[in-house]
Amino acid sequence: MTKSRVSAHDEHIRVAVSTVIFSLRATPDAGSARVWLPLVRRTRDPFEGQWALPGGWLDIDEGLEQAASRTLAETTSLAPTYLEQLYAFGDVGRSPSRVVSVVYWALQREDASLSSIADENVAWFDTGDLPPLAFDHAHIIEYALWRLRNKVGYSRIAHGLLPEEFTLAQLREVYEAILGRRLDAANFRRQVENSGTLRPTDRYRTGSHRPARLYRYNRDVELADRGPLPDQEQS
Amino acid sequence: MTKSRVSAHDEHIRVAVSTVIFSLRATPDAGSARVWLPLVRRTRDPFEGQWALPGGWLDIDEGLEQAASRTLAETTSLAPTYLEQLYAFGDVGRSPSRVVSVVYWALQREDASLSSIADENVAWFDTGDLPPLAFDHAHIIEYALWRLRNKVGYSRIAHGLLPEEFTLAQLREVYEAILGRRLDAANFRRQVENSGTLRPTDRYRTGSHRPARLYRYNRDVELADRGPLPDQEQS
Repeated sequence: MTKSRVSAHDEHIRVAVSTVIFSLRATPDAGSARVWLPLVRRTRDPFEGQWALPGGWLDIDEGLEQAASRTLAETTSLAPTYLEQLYAFGDVGRSPSRVVSVVYWALQREDASLSSIADENVAWFDTGDLPPLAFDHAHIIEYALWRLRNKVGYSRIAHGLLPEEFTLAQLREVYEAILGRRLDAANFRRQVENSGTLRPTDRYRTGSHRPARLYRYNRDVELADRGPLPDQEQS
Repeated sequence: MTKSRVSAHDEHIRVAVSTVIFSLRATPDAGSARVWLPLVRRTRDPFEGQWALPGGWLDIDEGLEQAASRTLAETTSLAPTYLEQLYAFGDVGRSPSRVVSVVYWALQREDASLSSIADENVAWFDTGDLPPLAFDHAHIIEYALWRLRNKVGYSRIAHGLLPEEFTLAQLREVYEAILGRRLDAANFRRQVENSGTLRPTDRYRTGSHRPARLYRYNRDVELADRGPLPDQEQS
């Protein structure tokens, strides 16, 4: 904005927003949970009939995060409590017209809302088994998955996929789904207990297995991945 | 981009890029180094005469990172080897016209290039003593500093501010400048040596103090904060 040269073409660059929402789904066959996300089938060119991330154009009178929330609700009826900006994608050839897409991402707990979508052009997919995707959305999802795997190691992002109280086995399943590999239960327990990020409750989950203690996240431990920004944006 | 509604106004949203470049400067008075960055004085409205981040408009035929490099070179003659996307800022009221700014950041080693800028409208400032800034650039710099402080804890980002070979005291000075506080030398040495991120050389820095061993970063240790993205963007 400090440059004096204004491109004659810059009015043809448009700004879109898209959102990657991850959720876990149990896959009884595999005996483990996997990471899923919702896609929307395009009903017009370009890429008509192909699946794409939920999103839309940025309106002149709305902020980026607001646009992400709005377009997500319009296309999928989903309303996650927390959207985080992932990245702005702006390669010249990523769309037939020139589009800069600011992509947000979110985590969604597995609950009834996931199956309540009645639109045949909206569906959930296993991130390990995606259909052909419009634009550079396969690349965007690959990057979002990388960020998710990376982030789970140094923040309590797994919380976004768990109920308020959970067992260590449930927490381990989240990590296993995100990282795509099994973790040693004893090592995992030790690492988590030493991290100070969890607080044991005096409640237990009972069922077919022996009772397992329920934990909750320790809110006194500062998140490594939140900055001054989210608060400011909300104000 | 999957939305069918196209705002009648979206052609009035423009895309700009800006870059935050941090460097360290020794401040003999304080006996320590501090984080500095270059700013450009605006020569037109809005905010004429005020200081702003180097940047400019995105051209129709260039990628975001390419635009960041170009506008940075044009305004400051700086050419850092590595730019990383920081965040896309798109609040409605951040500029008199509607502008989404994709902001990049970089680290610059302290060398001759820092003082070679002959333009009176370009100057380096101590991040702890900034002038009034145009737009939301004070907020952007605050966020970039937060990211820098946060990132130095889990990646070898300090490398971007050091020569290829450096002493542990030099490395500690980088951390101290970024974190804004003194670190215990013995603790710091222990943590760094245990991290596996450094390789000792058999060379020493000699001078007025007793000889200090030179280290280099261990390239076998994967960066925590690089993904598949930067490579793809360069291809």
